[in-house]
Amino acid sequence: MTARIRQFLRKRAEDGPCLVVDLDVVRENYLAFAKALPDTKVFYAVKANPAPEVLALLAALGSSFDAASVTEIEMALAAGATADRISFGNTIKKERDVARAYALGVRLYAVDCIAEVEKIARAAPGARVFCRILSDCVGAEWPLSRKCGCEPAMAPDVLEHAHRLGLTACGVSFHVGSQQRNPQAWDRALASVAAVFRECGERGINLAMVNLGGGFPTRYLKNVPTVKTYGSAIFRALRRHFGNRIPETIIEPGRGMIGNAGVIEAEVVLVSKKNENDDVRWVYLDIGKFGGLAETMDESIRYPIRTPRDGDDLAPCVIAGPTCDSADVMYEREPYALPISLEIGDKLLIEGTGAYTATYASVAFNGFPPLKTYHI
Amino acid sequence: MTARIRQFLRKRAEDGPCLVVDLDVVRENYLAFAKALPDTKVFYAVKANPAPEVLALLAALGSSFDAASVTEIEMALAAGATADRISFGNTIKKERDVARAYALGVRLYAVDCIAEVEKIARAAPGARVFCRILSDCVGAEWPLSRKCGCEPAMAPDVLEHAHRLGLTACGVSFHVGSQQRNPQAWDRALASVAAVFRECGERGINLAMVNLGGGFPTRYLKNVPTVKTYGSAIFRALRRHFGNRIPETIIEPGRGMIGNAGVIEAEVVLVSKKNENDDVRWVYLDIGKFGGLAETMDESIRYPIRTPRDGDDLAPCVIAGPTCDSADVMYEREPYALPISLEIGDKLLIEGTGAYTATYASVAFNGFPPLKTYHI
Repeated sequence: MTARIRQFLRKRAEDGPCLVVDLDVVRENYLAFAKALPDTKVFYAVKANPAPEVLALLAALGSSFDAASVTEIEMALAAGATADRISFGNTIKKERDVARAYALGVRLYAVDCIAEVEKIARAAPGARVFCRILSDCVGAEWPLSRKCGCEPAMAPDVLEHAHRLGLTACGVSFHVGSQQRNPQAWDRALASVAAVFRECGERGINLAMVNLGGGFPTRYLKNVPTVKTYGSAIFRALRRHFGNRIPETIIEPGRGMIGNAGVIEAEVVLVSKKNENDDVRWVYLDIGKFGGLAETMDESIRYPIRTPRDGDDLAPCVIAGPTCDSADVMYEREPYALPISLEIGDKLLIEGTGAYTATYASVAFNGFPPLKTYHI
Repeated sequence: MTARIRQFLRKRAEDGPCLVVDLDVVRENYLAFAKALPDTKVFYAVKANPAPEVLALLAALGSSFDAASVTEIEMALAAGATADRISFGNTIKKERDVARAYALGVRLYAVDCIAEVEKIARAAPGARVFCRILSDCVGAEWPLSRKCGCEPAMAPDVLEHAHRLGLTACGVSFHVGSQQRNPQAWDRALASVAAVFRECGERGINLAMVNLGGGFPTRYLKNVPTVKTYGSAIFRALRRHFGNRIPETIIEPGRGMIGNAGVIEAEVVLVSKKNENDDVRWVYLDIGKFGGLAETMDESIRYPIRTPRDGDDLAPCVIAGPTCDSADVMYEREPYALPISLEIGDKLLIEGTGAYTATYASVAFNGFPPLKTYHI
């Protein structure tokens, strides 16, 4: 919560929740990544927050971009990035979207299976491809599923197939899991990557690049290590597994780049009990799972919440959104301590909400409009 | 899947998934409800699908409307409903939204606690209120949480408070749980309602209305009882608990009114394995949890899926969406049997998707546009 955001919110008069992102914080985060990993190119994960102001700032700072769709590629280009600074990092792409990306000049693509390689070979001849491998994600607050990536043992076949079809099999990517709080997590994954490099080398394919993925955390309720700590741990792991022949590396921070730059202002719509003897109150806000706080699903991300009554005695609360949907409850399994004096109409600040909020908002569930956003 | 939808889809040329709703089916559903419960007013739950074409059709047929927000009230009015045919059924309302609804002429409001009653008394003086009570939801495929409603024992206090503040304490509502497959579920809830009626009567407050809620199912993979079966069971339960003094009743079908009228056409983007020995394949579609299929969360709703290769041998598949989000996996715990011959580019039909799809779609997650919709 920066002074600039506080000042902005003081002047705001409209009804409804909003997200305010302080671009100065994004700038600081970018510079911290660039300093912590000086030989690594930053590919900002556009999906975390694709606001034009964010993309333009990062493009001007020299960032590259990891795009999940043709729309995100077009947005990065519109913000001033050149096509050689864009990676089409989604492993699930329609062939006609690969063709569109190729026509826009994009030459770097993620794959995780033979069928995807064949799409790229047909629609983006000669492009560079990297193969995503699965990693175990131990230590992540939000471990990834097996959705993207193949077993490391399959990667050399995928890359060799790319090579045979005239593509440049350039490297390997992995993701250590979202909100990864253990800087050593990259070490295990890099051991697998080095094995893929060796196997490909034996097949006459010289890989040159490691995409270290995202996973860099933002501070929610618990402290997280600094970007510098991550940088040192990753550099040590690269030295351990690649010796003096460290490959070209890229990272794809999303949450780590912008999570802590944003604050959502919300309003308490109702405070009630289900019967008079309940010791847990229900606090209903004008934002919920379908208004942008989708990452509260399974109570995964636990956002810090500030109230105008902080300092008063606390009481356990279930926190829910404004829709009629029974799934629109954010914290119930583990109730959230809020001031017992909290009242209907109070404004709350939900911190660490710069990433993965605005674009998740539904178009109009229950008639509620999408989350308003301001990038200042 | 009707012939009209099939014909529409044959002519469609655009890229991307879409929802097609056959309004003739909505009309049939409305008439079935009206016939099965001839003395009950239908308040269509706008949140299920607020498309103007749907609202206009239902308004013309004589339906009333259950609205979750001021926007939904405005949409019902724009479709031709009069304010006396609209209930503001969300128990979580900003006081200024109550005032807006009152200014638009709405005089019927849901409450479930004292604080909400006080908002209505201030912002909608003299209005009719009904108190929502919790019910157990046994038999529902998607039981509701404790989010909306109070314990039945608290309801007389809430209604008495309304009465004292000059409101008309008109009745009680409940919800037997979404996709309720047991027509007897209304019986237990009505026993609680009758007790609230008696207690209020003893306090000199004569309640006159029971809102029987929604919960009427749509057919997904399993058969469901007919609307006629529900109508008979509800009428018997009303007779059992209210004898010859059956109160005014209303129902709020949403899913039951429009679920089976809609079909989503989607495309297979990728079919792959994570290693060569996997016996479960991953099938990625161009629609997922964030494109409109949010009700697959926790694999709650299991939609019927038709493919152009139905009849071929089946194999178990994980079905996932097109985004980079690891949560965007629809069926994994219980893999889904699809034809082993299924190929990238095949078009699938996801049936029973008329309700709770289009408005859930995210504004632009991963850059993917919201679900396109056609109401024919």
